Amino acid sequence: MTELNNGAETLVRTLTDSRIDMCFTNPGTSEMHLVAALDRIDGPRCVLGLFEGVVTGAADGYARMADKPAATLLHCGPGLANGLANIHNARKAGTPMVNLIGDHATWHVEHNAPLTADVVGLAAPMSDWVRLTPDAASLAQDAAEAVAAANAYNGKIASLVVPGNAAWDTASESAQAMRSTPPVAVDPTALNEAVNCLRNGKRSVLIVGGNCLREQPLAQAYTIATHCGANLLAPTSNARTSRGHGRAPVTPVPYPVHQALEMLAEVEQVVLVCADAPVGFFAYPDTPSSMLPPGCHVVQLASQDGDGPAALAALADAVGATDPAAVPKLTAPIKPIDASLTPSLINAVVAYRIPEQAVLVDEAITGGRDLLDFTAAAAPHEHLQIVGGSIGIGPPLATGAALADAERRVIALQADGSAMYTLQALWTQAREQLNVTTIVYANRAYGILQYELRNVGAQSGDQIGEVARNMMALDNPELNFVQLATGMGVPASRVHTVNELDRALCAALAADGPVLIEAVL
Amino acid sequence: MTELNNGAETLVRTLTDSRIDMCFTNPGTSEMHLVAALDRIDGPRCVLGLFEGVVTGAADGYARMADKPAATLLHCGPGLANGLANIHNARKAGTPMVNLIGDHATWHVEHNAPLTADVVGLAAPMSDWVRLTPDAASLAQDAAEAVAAANAYNGKIASLVVPGNAAWDTASESAQAMRSTPPVAVDPTALNEAVNCLRNGKRSVLIVGGNCLREQPLAQAYTIATHCGANLLAPTSNARTSRGHGRAPVTPVPYPVHQALEMLAEVEQVVLVCADAPVGFFAYPDTPSSMLPPGCHVVQLASQDGDGPAALAALADAVGATDPAAVPKLTAPIKPIDASLTPSLINAVVAYRIPEQAVLVDEAITGGRDLLDFTAAAAPHEHLQIVGGSIGIGPPLATGAALADAERRVIALQADGSAMYTLQALWTQAREQLNVTTIVYANRAYGILQYELRNVGAQSGDQIGEVARNMMALDNPELNFVQLATGMGVPASRVHTVNELDRALCAALAADGPVLIEAVL
Repeated sequence: MTELNNGAETLVRTLTDSRIDMCFTNPGTSEMHLVAALDRIDGPRCVLGLFEGVVTGAADGYARMADKPAATLLHCGPGLANGLANIHNARKAGTPMVNLIGDHATWHVEHNAPLTADVVGLAAPMSDWVRLTPDAASLAQDAAEAVAAANAYNGKIASLVVPGNAAWDTASESAQAMRSTPPVAVDPTALNEAVNCLRNGKRSVLIVGGNCLREQPLAQAYTIATHCGANLLAPTSNARTSRGHGRAPVTPVPYPVHQALEMLAEVEQVVLVCADAPVGFFAYPDTPSSMLPPGCHVVQLASQDGDGPAALAALADAVGATDPAAVPKLTAPIKPIDASLTPSLINAVVAYRIPEQAVLVDEAITGGRDLLDFTAAAAPHEHLQIVGGSIGIGPPLATGAALADAERRVIALQADGSAMYTLQALWTQAREQLNVTTIVYANRAYGILQYELRNVGAQSGDQIGEVARNMMALDNPELNFVQLATGMGVPASRVHTVNELDRALCAALAADGPVLIEAVL
Repeated sequence: MTELNNGAETLVRTLTDSRIDMCFTNPGTSEMHLVAALDRIDGPRCVLGLFEGVVTGAADGYARMADKPAATLLHCGPGLANGLANIHNARKAGTPMVNLIGDHATWHVEHNAPLTADVVGLAAPMSDWVRLTPDAASLAQDAAEAVAAANAYNGKIASLVVPGNAAWDTASESAQAMRSTPPVAVDPTALNEAVNCLRNGKRSVLIVGGNCLREQPLAQAYTIATHCGANLLAPTSNARTSRGHGRAPVTPVPYPVHQALEMLAEVEQVVLVCADAPVGFFAYPDTPSSMLPPGCHVVQLASQDGDGPAALAALADAVGATDPAAVPKLTAPIKPIDASLTPSLINAVVAYRIPEQAVLVDEAITGGRDLLDFTAAAAPHEHLQIVGGSIGIGPPLATGAALADAERRVIALQADGSAMYTLQALWTQAREQLNVTTIVYANRAYGILQYELRNVGAQSGDQIGEVARNMMALDNPELNFVQLATGMGVPASRVHTVNELDRALCAALAADGPVLIEAVL
């Protein structure tokens, strides 16, 4: 075993002993001893991102597919700030993550050097666990606690601030891996209440989220709902859903508020398992925040921190839903006839070509509105969505997912406006030669805003003026994603028709390494 | 005068009445009423950035050249988070900025929708003034106070959080522009002390920063230093320095700590005007944080919030430095002979070609080490640096500077690694057809980290392993900035030699609109 000489080396050894295998990095001067330690100690694999939003988004994608946290290595307050939006997304997705944020040596902070910032203050709003480690002797134990905090059920964001001297001062002892907080056990009272709801004949909905959207618990939820005559729903956006042929179907609550309100208008009872009661993504004038009708009875069988699969198993037992319900047989996707591309046609081609056990990273935004309809009977795959609503997750999420499982192909469905937030992830895909195929829905607009401007009642269609139009249009100049991707080492092509997309997608899925396809709408 | 109907419209009118002419935007759903108001009311010019770091960095560049704040329009907590790093840079530069951050309607926050975040908590670490406006009736007055707070001397960061209902609820009264906090007056005791220092024959240094680096006060500082036999220095990095032929010379404290310590080793007294006592940019093991020798006497004649030019005028009077000192006559830059490019040769070509009254935006990092030597006798120009140390300021800063003054050419000297943080600014340059010429120093590395890895004592040169090398090298794959720029609508070319660069630079400076030149090192 390599001898440990300083805090940084005890940190790296502790991470390794705590099963952290991957570290996404964008280090700076204050992290150089951590870099040296990662170099010297046989520890986590290090993957460089050219921007911190890439680093944290990739850590999210990795954890969603590896079912364990990655570490990130970030540079001082501003470096952390650049990664916060995707930390927010990860937190909302229940993703575990261990952020290591380097900072000035403790004795240097009072001198207010240029990069001095309140790192703990910045980390706190987006983290579940934050600590500033005081010295080298404390660093290993703090790291072990950070990993344990991240691994709590469901995943948490742990942010550990590491002053330069805590990394470079002498230390020799790593810390043992620590046990994490187990999931909250099923509450018998809530279970009885849920059983009563599902048996009393009223109109009931079972909403399952989090880990309950994986293949086995989802099948159990479907069996329960079928057995009891309840509707099975999922939250609007989810970290990871097992979908496709043979998997139990689950309908997400629609994003448009009027659709959600309509879908849930007659519901009398809701049983929640690892899900919150549905609320509007945004607020609108004269519109309720809750999507449930007044008086609707809500039973929280398991919170987001609860053991959802165990709760479903207990519920199935209690209601006698023991025979697995057969999933409906759906017609397999067919190849659409050739035509100029529309978002729906892109979704149809993807559904037709998605490989077995692929990962579908979905930041298609307005382009993906009917995606789930098309992919319902596609080859079995994992569907990864943006849960926190902060655009700019797609390219990093795909990067991290591909690194977590080299056996799976990753298809990233990417809105053009959102792509521009963290497109630097393509460079990491090229460097690591990841099997990621990115399809850009190039509608040359923030389509969601064009939709929402009317939705919030800010302007009716014919009143949109030049100023407002310019804040939502990306057509002047047009972005050329072929050049952008090629400039970062990712082969790319532009397609306009179904047949062009189909050919490009087939070629991409047969190739090694990343490919980008710009689908012009 | 257009009638005002809601909070958003009273906000826009108030901004206009408070002399806010420019708003850099990246709005989302919760800001749609603000967008509609900006559309309807004849108010600030709106410029879209494709990422919030572009928005805030452009606001910084605008304010540095326009000498008044721009507004930014940001989307909820995560949108603010994406802009924080360049807000940090702006704050350290003493740049005024008014951030308008949309958020959920007040009654929606408790429902914990996906984008819900502690916006005030995120803004606080990087802001001087933060407020969450409670309702539409308060919005106009809060906006007037935000502008006044930003305009305090020297510039401050004001962040106003605007809930959706504060924007869309009925309101009809805008607020009057408010007076800002004036600069702190010159303290007679400090003035006497400074006079005594400069006359007592001990080795003295006059360090001037902030507004004192503009042409007139800098000339006065030079006259004082010359008259009194003191050295004239500036902080290592500065928001805006008037430089070039005919301007008074001032030497910045070097970035490398050993050079700074050596330069200041014999200093007995320091007089500070709008500058802090020099400290190390980073901490290093066994190295002091202060760059001043022990026992050095420090006189703060004016703080960063003080009226530096007035302090210098009073000091000049008091020491009798009334005749302007002649600035040294330097040889004008010459065109270097043709050769393969090095960073120094790029700097030499730039110095030779920089147009009269141009703006030099400097995020060249390691490539810019000897830039100031070359440009000292170049045509008079304004030199804008990264003050807060958070890389990724260059492309946005150049964008904002160009929008502030269409008469000036902007030359942006850009390190490649840093360019990749906020390269989306090129799209805004193309859309607005700004006269920005960006020169990328393509060394395919985080050169500063290769330097600092040794500097902090983390590794000696021959010990650098594959993992550490990979975290600092950008050569696999090589970034192609010609494709990246062209993909965002900016014409670009790649050059390898002095003559190629010179030709490309001349063509760029003669053209309308933005150009990027990738200088391969």
